[in-house]
Amino acid sequence: MAGNSIGKLLRLSSFGESHGPAIGGVLDGFPAGLSLDLEAVQAQLARRRPGQSKITTQRKETDQVEWLSGIFEGKSTGMPIAFIIPNSDAKSKDYEHLKHSFRPSHADKVYQEKYGLRDYRGGGRSSARETAVRVAAGALAQQLIAPISIKAYVSSVGELDLDPALNLDLSKIDSNIVRCPDSETASRFEDQINKARKDGDSLGGIITCRITQVPAGLGEPVFDKLHAELAKAMLSINAVKGFEIGSGFAGSRMRGSIHNDAFDSNGRRLSNNAGGIEGGISNGEEIYFRVAFKPVATIMKGQWGLDDQGEPTEIKGKGRHDPCVVPRAVPIVEAMAALVLADHLLLARTSKY
Amino acid sequence: MAGNSIGKLLRLSSFGESHGPAIGGVLDGFPAGLSLDLEAVQAQLARRRPGQSKITTQRKETDQVEWLSGIFEGKSTGMPIAFIIPNSDAKSKDYEHLKHSFRPSHADKVYQEKYGLRDYRGGGRSSARETAVRVAAGALAQQLIAPISIKAYVSSVGELDLDPALNLDLSKIDSNIVRCPDSETASRFEDQINKARKDGDSLGGIITCRITQVPAGLGEPVFDKLHAELAKAMLSINAVKGFEIGSGFAGSRMRGSIHNDAFDSNGRRLSNNAGGIEGGISNGEEIYFRVAFKPVATIMKGQWGLDDQGEPTEIKGKGRHDPCVVPRAVPIVEAMAALVLADHLLLARTSKY
Amino acid sequence: MAGNSIGKLLRLSSFGESHGPAIGGVLDGFPAGLSLDLEAVQAQLARRRPGQSKITTQRKETDQVEWLSGIFEGKSTGMPIAFIIPNSDAKSKDYEHLKHSFRPSHADKVYQEKYGLRDYRGGGRSSARETAVRVAAGALAQQLIAPISIKAYVSSVGELDLDPALNLDLSKIDSNIVRCPDSETASRFEDQINKARKDGDSLGGIITCRITQVPAGLGEPVFDKLHAELAKAMLSINAVKGFEIGSGFAGSRMRGSIHNDAFDSNGRRLSNNAGGIEGGISNGEEIYFRVAFKPVATIMKGQWGLDDQGEPTEIKGKGRHDPCVVPRAVPIVEAMAALVLADHLLLARTSKY
Amino acid sequence: MAGNSIGKLLRLSSFGESHGPAIGGVLDGFPAGLSLDLEAVQAQLARRRPGQSKITTQRKETDQVEWLSGIFEGKSTGMPIAFIIPNSDAKSKDYEHLKHSFRPSHADKVYQEKYGLRDYRGGGRSSARETAVRVAAGALAQQLIAPISIKAYVSSVGELDLDPALNLDLSKIDSNIVRCPDSETASRFEDQINKARKDGDSLGGIITCRITQVPAGLGEPVFDKLHAELAKAMLSINAVKGFEIGSGFAGSRMRGSIHNDAFDSNGRRLSNNAGGIEGGISNGEEIYFRVAFKPVATIMKGQWGLDDQGEPTEIKGKGRHDPCVVPRAVPIVEAMAALVLADHLLLARTSKY
Repeated sequence: MAGNSIGKLLRLSSFGESHGPAIGGVLDGFPAGLSLDLEAVQAQLARRRPGQSKITTQRKETDQVEWLSGIFEGKSTGMPIAFIIPNSDAKSKDYEHLKHSFRPSHADKVYQEKYGLRDYRGGGRSSARETAVRVAAGALAQQLIAPISIKAYVSSVGELDLDPALNLDLSKIDSNIVRCPDSETASRFEDQINKARKDGDSLGGIITCRITQVPAGLGEPVFDKLHAELAKAMLSINAVKGFEIGSGFAGSRMRGSIHNDAFDSNGRRLSNNAGGIEGGISNGEEIYFRVAFKPVATIMKGQWGLDDQGEPTEIKGKGRHDPCVVPRAVPIVEAMAALVLADHLLLARTSKY
Repeated sequence: MAGNSIGKLLRLSSFGESHGPAIGGVLDGFPAGLSLDLEAVQAQLARRRPGQSKITTQRKETDQVEWLSGIFEGKSTGMPIAFIIPNSDAKSKDYEHLKHSFRPSHADKVYQEKYGLRDYRGGGRSSARETAVRVAAGALAQQLIAPISIKAYVSSVGELDLDPALNLDLSKIDSNIVRCPDSETASRFEDQINKARKDGDSLGGIITCRITQVPAGLGEPVFDKLHAELAKAMLSINAVKGFEIGSGFAGSRMRGSIHNDAFDSNGRRLSNNAGGIEGGISNGEEIYFRVAFKPVATIMKGQWGLDDQGEPTEIKGKGRHDPCVVPRAVPIVEAMAALVLADHLLLARTSKY
Repeated sequence: MAGNSIGKLLRLSSFGESHGPAIGGVLDGFPAGLSLDLEAVQAQLARRRPGQSKITTQRKETDQVEWLSGIFEGKSTGMPIAFIIPNSDAKSKDYEHLKHSFRPSHADKVYQEKYGLRDYRGGGRSSARETAVRVAAGALAQQLIAPISIKAYVSSVGELDLDPALNLDLSKIDSNIVRCPDSETASRFEDQINKARKDGDSLGGIITCRITQVPAGLGEPVFDKLHAELAKAMLSINAVKGFEIGSGFAGSRMRGSIHNDAFDSNGRRLSNNAGGIEGGISNGEEIYFRVAFKPVATIMKGQWGLDDQGEPTEIKGKGRHDPCVVPRAVPIVEAMAALVLADHLLLARTSKY
Repeated sequence: MAGNSIGKLLRLSSFGESHGPAIGGVLDGFPAGLSLDLEAVQAQLARRRPGQSKITTQRKETDQVEWLSGIFEGKSTGMPIAFIIPNSDAKSKDYEHLKHSFRPSHADKVYQEKYGLRDYRGGGRSSARETAVRVAAGALAQQLIAPISIKAYVSSVGELDLDPALNLDLSKIDSNIVRCPDSETASRFEDQINKARKDGDSLGGIITCRITQVPAGLGEPVFDKLHAELAKAMLSINAVKGFEIGSGFAGSRMRGSIHNDAFDSNGRRLSNNAGGIEGGISNGEEIYFRVAFKPVATIMKGQWGLDDQGEPTEIKGKGRHDPCVVPRAVPIVEAMAALVLADHLLLARTSKY
């Protein structure tokens, strides 16, 4: 057990259920003396917040963080930074019908099997509401690792892809509600999401993340390679089914003579199939990776779930759900990346005598 | 630092360089009282061993394990199981030319940057030779988790794929030197590898892994989800660039109504897009995932590396190298999966009062 | 960093400062399905609470726990149990004089040196107020380990000792405000404490802890021996300077023939100099140990502290302080023991195949 | 389980049994670039080695370390430093009589109960032979923390004490076989040990450890306080029953006005009852603590053990044993202190932004 913490030196412990009084986190190991921009934390939470646009769930949560410790006169003190985010708009009665039934492709049944009981209201601990904690903590981590820049965006929605040949302006990621930096593609993505919603159905998608200004030397071979830690962090996000870094799955189809990133006369790589990490250690080039999200499990169409007597039962989504999770997942991907990088920045302080 | 251990309750600490006296490991937390089949460990090592076939490196290593502790009268004692595997055929002089130069897409340069010095002989710690330790420890873990069955096989080599529609007989994985259960596909894969070798080039590939007879309830939300731990374990293997579980990247293109795994009247899922894990917890269905390996970085063709004065320098592979790593990586994937599952089987003993 | 968590499988993460909005904790790894008695938690907190008697600080804190997660319909769910205890009677202005000065034998100066800044109000994180979190979490742990019984009591105050030859009735520990099971001795202890208070001075003392009904087999050699973990847990409590188990320091003066605990014909030990632990593993006999507390550092008499310009400055205690900490430390010792034992009970589930 | 590692950033994993082929360790997290003096390691091992003088066991072990990894051209590489120490003079037949019986005050019975089986030869894993691994690793840690100086010595043997009022010359610790810096006291200690040996009996004793040149700022509140970590490390050594830092148990008898360490005009403390640690953090003053060892359990006199049928059985020590363990334990105490300090020196690199 004890799987609710992540990080070695900078360690986030997360807690809370979707319909309990609050969710929250404790971020331990945050170095002392950094002036914290708590508004920036709220701004990141606003990007993940439900009800932010017409293509997201209409649950209303202000997601206002209450800071409990570890900050004094605006600065980190080196003590654990604890915070809670109250659950203000939980409508538990939407979930009464789930007390005795298991939704397909949800965590309902496995929680019941593993723990012998479960808080069924809104998915309890397995709800993606928990990711708000990650976003808050990640926003602090991002301040710790400046000037490293982490930018995630939506690169696929369902069967539609952002053309990889496009020249992207990453400052435009938030110029639309889908969080795709190309406005024309964003518009097509949005249409696709609306279509799925009207059908009472849902869509998956892919998020691309790019990290620049990373110093060389982050990552701890052989097991805690930087990309291995990123992979774990990303796969720990609800609905994620795949991760690839650099050339990824496509790279497995190339020949070595094409794939290898030869050096130029400045010691830079002429290509970046590695994705900024070699041998598990950042090499100073851009780190980029892609994260695949399955379609949201809760749909308005009827499906075969199971009741707690073992009988199939038709289940239709109630409550308030996203038809496609990727627009709101953008800040979550950024947060998890920030937590991993911050942890490894601290670890890297100890690699040399 | 301290990144050379993996696992919480069952914990492997790995050590050793390619051209040092030995590599080895300490497996702590292995429960007492299990009769160990040490021949089975050697058999798994033989599958990873260099020089096992004409498509692998010709370095000769018997990879005979010397067991140092933790086993008494054939049984595990609950004490750490330590072992070493001597390096008997290290030819360090093959690597003298690397003392002052960094190979492209290798760990040479990042190790130098991170640590300020490096053991350049045969890649030192970054050599895939280290994975023999994983295979030995994983073979013990596999005995701990019986009757769980873990079967990996090569499903792509370069641009060639095993037809996913084929009905596979997994008992035939080792019937050919490529470790693909379909003999006809294996033959095509082998030709492709030979062609690359003749060209002085290398290939990547994909390994699929299938795990059956897994009890429901393994995995520790929210960060130590079972598939997140598998992802980290796989990405920690040399040359791996991607991981996907269940429907994976393809699943991100589906609609929820298609992707969801509805229940049948026996409480089983009618489909398995989840890949055997829901909410981070095994659900009793088959776990399957795919692991992408980039092409081997060392090729016989000349490439632009860098010397330690910052000048580009042409580098051609010397030493003995695999043109395609996936056939030998099959037991490594299995080993890492076994270590993760064994750890989580022990963790799951503590989930209920 | 990240030193604010304790335990491997049952893991308490503590947070909060003396004069922040709240202190609190996250207890992760608590097995699912246990009906929790939250009143019993409050009862333990009441034993640690300031203002409970005339010999303790008069700070008024109700120490009412707010449970945030991990409990559903009265039972543990296997999810992290998070809770906060609001700080309701913090009088920060009592500490304004400490903004620019360091009290002797306090953590003021070392925090400033280590972190470069500090929350000086009421000692910030170094305040013993933090131990309320331990008591709350420990009270849950005690419910997990039933029927193991943990009883601590005051056995010395200053130079006065409880006669070790007395036959004690441990049900009488709370029959007096000093928490010494012998009423006559308790009365002498109380007088001593009152005398010190009148002098504007403070006293140390010793707490003895006895643990019965412990199953054999708890403790993880070679580093995580049960008594080593208890020692760390006790030394982590504010003001503790010593720990001894079983015969302790006195045992070092004995000969082996006297000290050894020979077996009787029932497999029990004829004596218990070991203190219930052999080779780091509980042997089923009573575990007993003693914990030494230094006198409280804050006294009303003037003393030489240091200002932040490096000049000595006279400091007199303001605020509200205990003249002797041991009566209130009794439940803290019990709580830390419970956390250690609960963690090791879970760990012991994994020792055999 | 998995209790055979210690340290967070600098982490020692220990393995091996008394009569197996070898004992050894893996020291992970050791920073790169330090020139290592491996002769100094052997010198420390020589101080712990059996057979070094007439008052120690006559088992002959050269304790020659074989270095397996992590060192290249005389320097640490940042990779795990693995080493083995072969067991060359194990006489297992001395222990055949223990196959079916449990010695009193040994770990025999609890290992059998916890693990269901045990390697009974020479105590197996519970043998103090394991501490050679700690000494080797600690000797490397000592090089990492220079110029911090750690000096331990014997301050009591049985009922005899080194006069605390003596002015000690710590350079004379090794001038006698008891490792007491005062030669006259050493001579009395030696006589006492010889007397016990002639009686077929054994003695306990106390080791004092003094650590100077420690920078302020080491230690991680609230649970990983520096003295809490030292306590755990010391209590993890075989036969240790007590630990006290600074004023220790005696301090609990003082008044605060006497005990407090007031500041002088240089910011130094006028006294050092704290023992160099305040609030869990080193304050730059000398750290000193005392460690109590019980008398050696194995004696030549007959005692009541237990056979594996539950019947009491007379057991006399065979094999080769120390009549008093403290002279050889001096380097073990130093080693454990060095490992703790080195770990915390690395941790302290991360406390400030």
